[in-house]
Amino acid sequence: LITFNELASVAGVFTRSKTAAAPVNWCKSIINNGSAKALIVNSGNANAFTGYQGNSHVTAITACVAKEIGCKANEVFVASTGVIGEYLPIAKILNVIPALSKSSKNKPWSDAANAMRTTDTYIKLSSEKYILDGKKFVINAIAKGSGMIAPDMATMLVFLFTDANISSEILSFILKKENHKTFNAITVDSDTSTSDTVLFFSTNQGENKEIDDYRDSRLKPFKSAVKKIMTDLSKQIVKDAEGISKFITIKVTEASSVNSAKKIANSIANSPLVKTAIAGEDPNWGRIVMAIGKSGQRVDRDKIKITIGSELITENGAVKESYNEELTKLYMQNREININVALGIGKSSFTVWTSDFTESYVRINSDYRS
Amino acid sequence: LITFNELASVAGVFTRSKTAAAPVNWCKSIINNGSAKALIVNSGNANAFTGYQGNSHVTAITACVAKEIGCKANEVFVASTGVIGEYLPIAKILNVIPALSKSSKNKPWSDAANAMRTTDTYIKLSSEKYILDGKKFVINAIAKGSGMIAPDMATMLVFLFTDANISSEILSFILKKENHKTFNAITVDSDTSTSDTVLFFSTNQGENKEIDDYRDSRLKPFKSAVKKIMTDLSKQIVKDAEGISKFITIKVTEASSVNSAKKIANSIANSPLVKTAIAGEDPNWGRIVMAIGKSGQRVDRDKIKITIGSELITENGAVKESYNEELTKLYMQNREININVALGIGKSSFTVWTSDFTESYVRINSDYRS
Repeated sequence: LITFNELASVAGVFTRSKTAAAPVNWCKSIINNGSAKALIVNSGNANAFTGYQGNSHVTAITACVAKEIGCKANEVFVASTGVIGEYLPIAKILNVIPALSKSSKNKPWSDAANAMRTTDTYIKLSSEKYILDGKKFVINAIAKGSGMIAPDMATMLVFLFTDANISSEILSFILKKENHKTFNAITVDSDTSTSDTVLFFSTNQGENKEIDDYRDSRLKPFKSAVKKIMTDLSKQIVKDAEGISKFITIKVTEASSVNSAKKIANSIANSPLVKTAIAGEDPNWGRIVMAIGKSGQRVDRDKIKITIGSELITENGAVKESYNEELTKLYMQNREININVALGIGKSSFTVWTSDFTESYVRINSDYRS
Repeated sequence: LITFNELASVAGVFTRSKTAAAPVNWCKSIINNGSAKALIVNSGNANAFTGYQGNSHVTAITACVAKEIGCKANEVFVASTGVIGEYLPIAKILNVIPALSKSSKNKPWSDAANAMRTTDTYIKLSSEKYILDGKKFVINAIAKGSGMIAPDMATMLVFLFTDANISSEILSFILKKENHKTFNAITVDSDTSTSDTVLFFSTNQGENKEIDDYRDSRLKPFKSAVKKIMTDLSKQIVKDAEGISKFITIKVTEASSVNSAKKIANSIANSPLVKTAIAGEDPNWGRIVMAIGKSGQRVDRDKIKITIGSELITENGAVKESYNEELTKLYMQNREININVALGIGKSSFTVWTSDFTESYVRINSDYRS
């Protein structure tokens, strides 16, 4: 439970799943008010596909928190993460809220980050300073996520907090803009969660004058801090991917559009055959060719340049004559792998971060009900 | 090498990959002539992403076969399957063609099926009898495929042969119609091959009168035989999926359109989290909910009915009160698993066949250059 002394500005992005969880539907219904007094999160149970009762549970939780801290129910944001399809142990949650609201003050961020872990192997925190209107500020953020991660929305739980006097409209604009190239640019297994939620809170307790135009140049350091923090957390999430042995950056350039570059990058990033080859430290660029081909995007086979690490592998629609696979095999032993695909047909690019596919991924996810 | 005494009618369907292999491009360029004198297939090397040289190799092979058996080069069909991005050992192939053309007569189908295996653990044959115009006929077919299998075209090599007097137009019509619900309805790993080819040959050596209208009722037994054989081979391919431990049938019904039913069925079939849960014999229906949600298709959460085996699990957007998970856990121990999803919003349906995702799949595909 995180509470704000005064009403905070808030902005959010949510999963586009057609079977979104009850807390997601609740947050979506109140996000446009732009005001928050509290955020309550539970892990272990996603309160997803829980029908009418799932909604009732959210109502009960928000009413209970509102009563406890003295605010309206629609100023209470809720997020749940964990198993889909089971009912929340609602009595247990309602019973603990009064004690929580008293004990939650002055606790370290790491406690909150730790409390919302599921299969995460480490807690995810990020912090950036920025100057606004001559005053010093900081953004603190916590995140969770390591499976059911796919780039069709903010695929995880992430909460950002700052004290500046910033409207929810500006928070929302900047959050959505950066989300596109950060949380929407990562994929572990192509599986989109029912619970993905990113919320950005600003307590308005800072001493800066409120800024009401997102183009205001004084926002530049703030925007840059948001970008850094979201990039950092995106990478932290992928680096904790279930069963990961390699962190992979896939950059597609010279595409006909950003959307096309993204589709091709994701087609490579989500291909089980590419992911298993990388797990086996095999620079199997033929499978990258396959994944480009299956994307359905416009490409000119003879212009595609595939680079792994610093080694250019293809030109003129075939393997480069001087290509030395032994060097690339050595490169594949690194923990971080860079793959670049230049399409040679345009000026747009997109970068996706992903993990490999290991026997350990299968073991973790074959375990009964993780 | 398979040769026909006289010109055979031929029809085909091919991968829609944007990086299709040289032999696929060749076959596409001659398929509309509708005539074949020979088919030559190699395995181990896909002749894909081999640029200008890849095309030259196909030209050399077709010229060599044509000279050897006495026909035109554009009556020679070629298919290659195996590693992407390496040049064919062309001298070796050209050297062996004269001997092949002499020795290939009266060999059993199983020899041909065996010769084109890559990671297939067994040979794939199918045979069906039919009556046409009062005469008895048979269709014999051979297939290969066990990985890089996805439902966006005829994802494998399949060759069908019969002796009836049937035009290439009718072959083509029937092949495409049945392909939609058979070879386009299977998926192992969502990865579409660069080499997928299905060719249907009819030698026209039969004694039936040629039929020139595909609606002719005399074709009924033939159509039914084609459907049976293509369904049989589709299932044979999935049952030989790399690392398979479960054969899974996913049927989506009551959808708003066939296309929507297919997208949802594939979203479930290709989800790594669904596939690993099934490998672990976990009836994790929450992940099926997730996969339905991520499909982006129109659904009404509260109308979705998920059935595993004969057990109805959900109703009214939540788990059914009387649902007994112990029974479903027992059911999951079967080798063949049936999942039904009734959407309750329309009358269309689609069925997809797939395999689970095991540690063994990862092991096979992490091995250096399989």
